[in-house]
Amino acid sequence: MKNVKRIILFFVFIASYFHTNAQVELLEKYDLMPWPKEIKENGQKFMINENFTIAVNKDNINPKIANATTKFLRRLSGRTGVFIDEGFATIASKSKEPSLVINYTREGKLELNEDESYELSVVNDQINLTAITDIGIIRGLETLLQLNDHTTTEYFFHGVDIKDAPRFSWRGLMIDVARHYEPLEVLKNNLDAMAAVKMNVFHWHLTEDQGFRVEVKSRPKFHQLASDGQYYTHEQIKELVAYASNLGIRVVPEFDIPGHATSWLVAYPEMASKDTIYKIERHAGIFDPTLDPTKEVTYEIITDVFSEIAPLFPDKYFHIGGDENEGKHWDENDKIQEFKKKNNIKDNHELQAYFNIKIQKILKEQGKIMMGWDEILQPTLPKDVVIHSWRGKEAMLKAAKQGYKTVLSKGYYIDLLKSIRHHYANEPISKGHGLTEEQLKNILGGEATMWGELVTPVSIDSRIWPRTAAIAEKLWSSIEIDDADNMLKRLESVNYRLEELGISHIRNRNVILRNISNNQELKSLITLTKICEPLKAYQRNKGGVEYKSYSPFTQFVDACNTDAIDAIRFNKSVKKYLKSNVDADKQEIIVLLNKWITNHTDFSKINNNPTLAKLEPLSSKLAELSSILKNGLTKGSINKAEHQKSIVIIDFLSKPIADTELVIIPAIKKLISAIEIRNVKP
Amino acid sequence: MKNVKRIILFFVFIASYFHTNAQVELLEKYDLMPWPKEIKENGQKFMINENFTIAVNKDNINPKIANATTKFLRRLSGRTGVFIDEGFATIASKSKEPSLVINYTREGKLELNEDESYELSVVNDQINLTAITDIGIIRGLETLLQLNDHTTTEYFFHGVDIKDAPRFSWRGLMIDVARHYEPLEVLKNNLDAMAAVKMNVFHWHLTEDQGFRVEVKSRPKFHQLASDGQYYTHEQIKELVAYASNLGIRVVPEFDIPGHATSWLVAYPEMASKDTIYKIERHAGIFDPTLDPTKEVTYEIITDVFSEIAPLFPDKYFHIGGDENEGKHWDENDKIQEFKKKNNIKDNHELQAYFNIKIQKILKEQGKIMMGWDEILQPTLPKDVVIHSWRGKEAMLKAAKQGYKTVLSKGYYIDLLKSIRHHYANEPISKGHGLTEEQLKNILGGEATMWGELVTPVSIDSRIWPRTAAIAEKLWSSIEIDDADNMLKRLESVNYRLEELGISHIRNRNVILRNISNNQELKSLITLTKICEPLKAYQRNKGGVEYKSYSPFTQFVDACNTDAIDAIRFNKSVKKYLKSNVDADKQEIIVLLNKWITNHTDFSKINNNPTLAKLEPLSSKLAELSSILKNGLTKGSINKAEHQKSIVIIDFLSKPIADTELVIIPAIKKLISAIEIRNVKP
Repeated sequence: MKNVKRIILFFVFIASYFHTNAQVELLEKYDLMPWPKEIKENGQKFMINENFTIAVNKDNINPKIANATTKFLRRLSGRTGVFIDEGFATIASKSKEPSLVINYTREGKLELNEDESYELSVVNDQINLTAITDIGIIRGLETLLQLNDHTTTEYFFHGVDIKDAPRFSWRGLMIDVARHYEPLEVLKNNLDAMAAVKMNVFHWHLTEDQGFRVEVKSRPKFHQLASDGQYYTHEQIKELVAYASNLGIRVVPEFDIPGHATSWLVAYPEMASKDTIYKIERHAGIFDPTLDPTKEVTYEIITDVFSEIAPLFPDKYFHIGGDENEGKHWDENDKIQEFKKKNNIKDNHELQAYFNIKIQKILKEQGKIMMGWDEILQPTLPKDVVIHSWRGKEAMLKAAKQGYKTVLSKGYYIDLLKSIRHHYANEPISKGHGLTEEQLKNILGGEATMWGELVTPVSIDSRIWPRTAAIAEKLWSSIEIDDADNMLKRLESVNYRLEELGISHIRNRNVILRNISNNQELKSLITLTKICEPLKAYQRNKGGVEYKSYSPFTQFVDACNTDAIDAIRFNKSVKKYLKSNVDADKQEIIVLLNKWITNHTDFSKINNNPTLAKLEPLSSKLAELSSILKNGLTKGSINKAEHQKSIVIIDFLSKPIADTELVIIPAIKKLISAIEIRNVKP
Repeated sequence: MKNVKRIILFFVFIASYFHTNAQVELLEKYDLMPWPKEIKENGQKFMINENFTIAVNKDNINPKIANATTKFLRRLSGRTGVFIDEGFATIASKSKEPSLVINYTREGKLELNEDESYELSVVNDQINLTAITDIGIIRGLETLLQLNDHTTTEYFFHGVDIKDAPRFSWRGLMIDVARHYEPLEVLKNNLDAMAAVKMNVFHWHLTEDQGFRVEVKSRPKFHQLASDGQYYTHEQIKELVAYASNLGIRVVPEFDIPGHATSWLVAYPEMASKDTIYKIERHAGIFDPTLDPTKEVTYEIITDVFSEIAPLFPDKYFHIGGDENEGKHWDENDKIQEFKKKNNIKDNHELQAYFNIKIQKILKEQGKIMMGWDEILQPTLPKDVVIHSWRGKEAMLKAAKQGYKTVLSKGYYIDLLKSIRHHYANEPISKGHGLTEEQLKNILGGEATMWGELVTPVSIDSRIWPRTAAIAEKLWSSIEIDDADNMLKRLESVNYRLEELGISHIRNRNVILRNISNNQELKSLITLTKICEPLKAYQRNKGGVEYKSYSPFTQFVDACNTDAIDAIRFNKSVKKYLKSNVDADKQEIIVLLNKWITNHTDFSKINNNPTLAKLEPLSSKLAELSSILKNGLTKGSINKAEHQKSIVIIDFLSKPIADTELVIIPAIKKLISAIEIRNVKP
């Protein structure tokens, strides 16, 4: 018996070993993202030609499936150039020998925990996509598109069998359209991109100190006075919600109260805690204007707004923000102080809880479940409220333990402009979480948050993508899928394919560079964007006072992005060389140093306007430093003068230049200290 | 007395001589487009800094002026990087020492012949913009943005005094959204671009055999059955019309009847001349389906559509198409033949006239003036109908002579993909027109026409721009402004500045190339796009049978454009060298030949998929031919074998490759014949 047990254990070990090894091999081979739950190769291939057809096992094709299949055909045709003869899916009974057979049981509901699983089988003569819901089909079609590949003569789909289902049921992207308005088209493109990486919640942050972006017919001053004319009409909201629904994406609106609410008070100052004149806020930051939770009119107006707006959003969840209310105006208001005393409310946190509970009732009447940022967590809060955690995972675990459903955004703040590796390493449920199985279920998933202070339609896509794809994988794929290097390999094709959905993250870099160079040769500027990253963690807009909402976001920094590609290459080469001390590795470094040396010559040719002049020190000092380093690497040493010069330059280049950070500096420092300093008398 | 006359004549001559010379100088100096009526330099400069403000001489700022001034400030800030402190225009009484003072007399009406003139004066300490109407102000602000320039240290506006007014009052762009649907955002961007070059009519071609793009609430089958779900709702139409109005642009809708009307019959076959099953047309071309002009139901349905749709468009003009009706289904229908006999209608042209007159009455009831393509011209037509001339200027002159107002599109068919020079040379009123002063007034202006068979949102901007800017100038500026070389010089900056309005004509080239190369190095493909142009004059879609509306428009040809830049350079160099026979000129040619020789090496590195394989012959044979030419130029001769080879290659490269035309071939032929053929025995 003992031996049998041992033998079984041995086989389990072997199986899991091979499974793991096979998995690693597949991860290297296929650019699927998010990675599916189960995937097996079958050694076959489905060749794509003009006879490609899709059949659906239903008596009629519903709008979701019509949309998904039509877009699928356009994208497949668009990327292969194959003139697919039949432009639309047909119902199975009217189709003979379809290429792709779609089978699903029922229409999916756009709600939490709806089934999104699917099974996909690609063999030589047919592709089968099967799911419980049409939403599962939508997810599977995206996987199939990622299996599209080519030989030199033909396009095909890889022969695999996939069983897939998400790990978390809430996989969201929040876009703040209040700090900067985003046209519907930008949002639609992002919804398509979300669907491409299987995300399913669009959290629409609609009001802020800087703007109230929704038409309110019963209270027209909101859009008339507090939006600068940049708001979404009811029709547009319906249009966007319908667009999202067709992609199997829920839409959760957010109306941020009682803080972050200057725009409410611009329209209806009678809701304010302080009697003053309110203007739309042009800067970024945390501001004092706060709704007065002790006035009946506050709730009257909120009821008007929510009862008008809530029906536009079929989703059950409704986000009320609730973050960063410091209650300064509450403290300054005698009547509010009196109210607190009278009602035995001991602090502002309790006063906000009082407010939240009233709001929750208003929303409940609209059939909505309230959701808010983690500040709203408070003992009296009803248990169906969802806590959106942004300040820390501990807050999330605490809420989950107390029985609240939670969504994680801490670690997914893409507006901090941190590396994609940072977000990919952010496992929602850390080890030692201390939750029971039941409590674990309270963790619904997570959301990437695109706060809008520093983005406009020109740059927003590059701030969301590709990093959000890594977060999407984090929330869909198994916990074991966590190798960042492999993710980055897979990301490459997934990333540029987002272009076919209209995402402008790649194309707009040169648009910005053409603007600042006044349409001159871009080469030298492109080189600089490959080693400069935007300042991280809100350093760019020092306390919110440098940039106004209408300041220019068309600068060099807006053409730069996180994970600057040549910097990654350089940092890797330096690390490798410092370990190996091998000449080939040194040459890799020198290639880049040469690039930066000659780059300044190119830059000098175009450096003729005030905007470019700001980059001159960056370009020239980088060239100088690269020259010293190259000499040092070539000769094996640098002299004292060179060393001192390099220290001065490094010091200069360590500081922000034109709101960017030269991210090769740490590697350069290591390189310098590794190069022997020859002590030459002056 | 005689002498005085002579002296006066002499001064007139001198004045006009200097005026002309000064004009030429200014044309070289400023990149204004369309060129203003009068411009004088004053030797001053207005420096731009963060204190820039705008004041408007009114008690309140109307939406048009608010929109124009806010966009002006954003664009100025966006292109200079200057953090302009005040983000909005203020009323003059509340503003001290404004930088830009805006003065206008009254709100402009969006109708024919409205005043669009303005006067602009830029001096050291202030800019004054004065106009009769706010539309004039909008035009003037675009001129001011074009006067924006820089030194190495500062941005400024050139000191000039301008008096400007348009030559024609109808300066239009037609976009066909029926063959391919275009999202609202694409249209909005194009409206902004139109305004940037002072165009004022957006002609919206809304129905075709391939689709009915408008929601009709009273007859919902139109949008439900005949649009593939791609149509504009009432709200979206209102949104676009409001957007255009804010730019001083009128919107003229077109519902093309009785031909080009398959989509009408897909929805309501009871209007058809033939009893058959109608399907949305997927190909391009002229099709037989035609409304039946003898049935009452036809007019009932049209009345329903027009009475519902007309009020959405405040403009007085309403386009009914009327083109290319060949009447085949009329001929095949006995009842229609009977009707003709009974009503003494001798041919189909008269039958269409009968139809048109009934339609004109329906429109008149809606307060609309009918407009149609030149086929509708017919003696019984009421004189207020506008004739839109597409088949020839003679037709236009004939109509004008008969007292009809006319708009010219012949020569402005940008979808033919001809050179910008072709359109710029198309003077609307040719010499010897034979019209009286009064009749000349009937020529309202012209319209660029963007037919939609071969364009999608990805490529449409590159098919409209920059060529439409040249047409805009043709319609705004004086007849004397006609130097194409100078226009091309001015166009350069005007063209790339369209990017700031969201026009994607430049950025989307690489998007398409990334797609076909599967994200490989683009250099070699870019080189090829600079000498290949899309096939002209509808050659690409041979009779409409090759491409369906959902065929891929994401190919190499879609990344190419007219007026290919290296081809222009090469053709110029060859011309110059063949005249001069000077070595320096020869070297210019050799530089390009070398580029094409080495380009094939780069191309071969990425040539790994079926799409790129189609370009292999182009790339390889071009390299081979360039090599022969280079040898020939270097040695002064080529041998017989080389010559024969070059003939074979030229023959091959003269044919379309991947739907493009290698436009250096004529110059290469000239070069070959100029190089002496050394007769070497084999």
